[in-house]
Amino acid sequence: MTDYDTTHFYAMILAGGGGTRLWPLSRKDRPKQMLPLLDHRSMFQMAIDRLEPFLPPERIFVVTGPDYVETMQRSVPHLPRENFIVEPFGRNSGPGAGLGMLHIRQRDPQAIVALLGSDHHIVDVAQFQRVLAAAGQVAARDYIVTLGISASFPSTGFGYIRRGDLLERVGEFEVYEAGQFTEKPDLATAIEFLAAGTYSWNSGMFICRVEQLFGELALQQPVMAAQLETIAAAIGTPDYDATLNRVWGEIQALSIDYAVMEGAQQMAVIPVDMGWTDVGSWASLLDVLDADPQGNACRGEGREPLLIDTQSSLVVSNRLVVTIGVEDLVIVDTDDVLLVCRRDRSQEVREAVDRLKASGDEGYL
Amino acid sequence: MTDYDTTHFYAMILAGGGGTRLWPLSRKDRPKQMLPLLDHRSMFQMAIDRLEPFLPPERIFVVTGPDYVETMQRSVPHLPRENFIVEPFGRNSGPGAGLGMLHIRQRDPQAIVALLGSDHHIVDVAQFQRVLAAAGQVAARDYIVTLGISASFPSTGFGYIRRGDLLERVGEFEVYEAGQFTEKPDLATAIEFLAAGTYSWNSGMFICRVEQLFGELALQQPVMAAQLETIAAAIGTPDYDATLNRVWGEIQALSIDYAVMEGAQQMAVIPVDMGWTDVGSWASLLDVLDADPQGNACRGEGREPLLIDTQSSLVVSNRLVVTIGVEDLVIVDTDDVLLVCRRDRSQEVREAVDRLKASGDEGYL
Repeated sequence: MTDYDTTHFYAMILAGGGGTRLWPLSRKDRPKQMLPLLDHRSMFQMAIDRLEPFLPPERIFVVTGPDYVETMQRSVPHLPRENFIVEPFGRNSGPGAGLGMLHIRQRDPQAIVALLGSDHHIVDVAQFQRVLAAAGQVAARDYIVTLGISASFPSTGFGYIRRGDLLERVGEFEVYEAGQFTEKPDLATAIEFLAAGTYSWNSGMFICRVEQLFGELALQQPVMAAQLETIAAAIGTPDYDATLNRVWGEIQALSIDYAVMEGAQQMAVIPVDMGWTDVGSWASLLDVLDADPQGNACRGEGREPLLIDTQSSLVVSNRLVVTIGVEDLVIVDTDDVLLVCRRDRSQEVREAVDRLKASGDEGYL
Repeated sequence: MTDYDTTHFYAMILAGGGGTRLWPLSRKDRPKQMLPLLDHRSMFQMAIDRLEPFLPPERIFVVTGPDYVETMQRSVPHLPRENFIVEPFGRNSGPGAGLGMLHIRQRDPQAIVALLGSDHHIVDVAQFQRVLAAAGQVAARDYIVTLGISASFPSTGFGYIRRGDLLERVGEFEVYEAGQFTEKPDLATAIEFLAAGTYSWNSGMFICRVEQLFGELALQQPVMAAQLETIAAAIGTPDYDATLNRVWGEIQALSIDYAVMEGAQQMAVIPVDMGWTDVGSWASLLDVLDADPQGNACRGEGREPLLIDTQSSLVVSNRLVVTIGVEDLVIVDTDDVLLVCRRDRSQEVREAVDRLKASGDEGYL
């Protein structure tokens, strides 16, 4: 089935973000990808584990920030330390992905890279590995491949990709030309997309040849491309850190979707239904966790909560929590902060964080 | 206006109970009357303060348990230490009130005693003092007087007293013969009582001559009366503690209402509308506290809570609490326990405590 040399296949995990929507558990010094939200492992460790034994550790790269890199290295000690690429500070996913890609290209100019998140939950890991393999084959034929998630409800929280013509079948997967990208639509549009049956959610997982990505970048974002090449020229020299810091101060903060993917030629989409969730909010975590028959899920290390007549609620605490007669609540309890939020309002946690920042309560962030 | 020697007027505060419905703030070693729920003072301190300067400290007695007495004494150091009467353990309000009354009778056989709770909130303290003075006059004429609270809604949580014939007016107050007592009625009955307009809530505040109380006790509860006289005979002797402990092991646990008041001759009721609340649950505390325009009230010493789109909720915490999109919640946060309870279910906190006790989680009680 494989018609390219799979030893050129790499994965790159973008793990730079803080994740304020999982506040107060996620903090400046403890980003959400480092939280053991789903089992005893952090979401970052799970993202690494999902790639094994599909990929050897030498071909797994991580892009993250200077505050997190040590903790992350310690949590996956089998990964080579030099595979952790450090951004001086966050500049959205475009520059971050570009920086990681530079280092992979340096290692292997023929590399095909799967660009992955660190805060996704995937139920069917075997299918995930099969679709990466299939996408690698398509990418080897000069397509930038995106994994499109089968939309199960008219979400206004995801971007959508329209499927174009069927290009080919690779194993169990259908590969389509990618049509238009649409950023988070309004509800009416989302309903329309779902009814049309030709749209997938944009998972943000892309697979492509590294040279092709830099080719698209040079076309679409020539300034950013030149800035990244300046960094590339310094790799392995004593000037690397100074160059990186200088360029990073100037580089434009753009998402990789916006910077490259939405405007790229030769985009393909592979629809996949593998139980994928972006664990981007407390509500989405509750969707992913094993719930009791009343729809409640609990995380924590203390005594089990005592939930009296309680439905569809999430309790995260290391203390004893007692609930009586409540439903659809998210209760997140940390040493210094307690959050009680209606489940369908958990996106607004970000607003709470912003308000604390504005009032100078940095200690809670 | 006063036609008896008011130097015989005493107050006795029953402060023995633990108050599991205010768990998890109230604990075995920190009963609810010791909590500073309403202002910086505990409810017990407020109960004492309400009597001053109406009564000198020498004529204020307190009945409580051995675990609480030291803390309570320290909190009102101007009260004579010998005025704290210690029950070996809780036996409901009948024996507790009887024990306190013994000690007051020992001091002053002509005493008229106002039997008061330690967990009540009273808005109009001046009226409270006036009605005590009026009740003292009625009690001097051999009535057991109960203060009847004007029923403002068909509560199923209070006992009711029917008013009989008007006996007299004392100052601004009307004094009625007391008719039937009804324990917590069902809703239909409560609605009927409210409509009839001749019922008051039983506040549990009684005013009577101490000798008359013991007379009624001898008639209605001869065994308990004899047991109390055994204790009385030991007051001031080296045998007091041993006698008290022995009798207390045998004495029947009955409420003072049931043991004496409901069957007493010569009962009078004075209806009074002084903003009285039995702070017996988190919901009743929320009713009493000053609320913001959204109906929220907060207690605690940490950073002010951040309440986003939140209504009619109570937050008790020393940590930062953030709420988003919730209403009618009681959130009580202590070092080791967090309670989140629907406001109208706060009576069920007791059930949670019972379940913890049953599962051996004594450390949380």
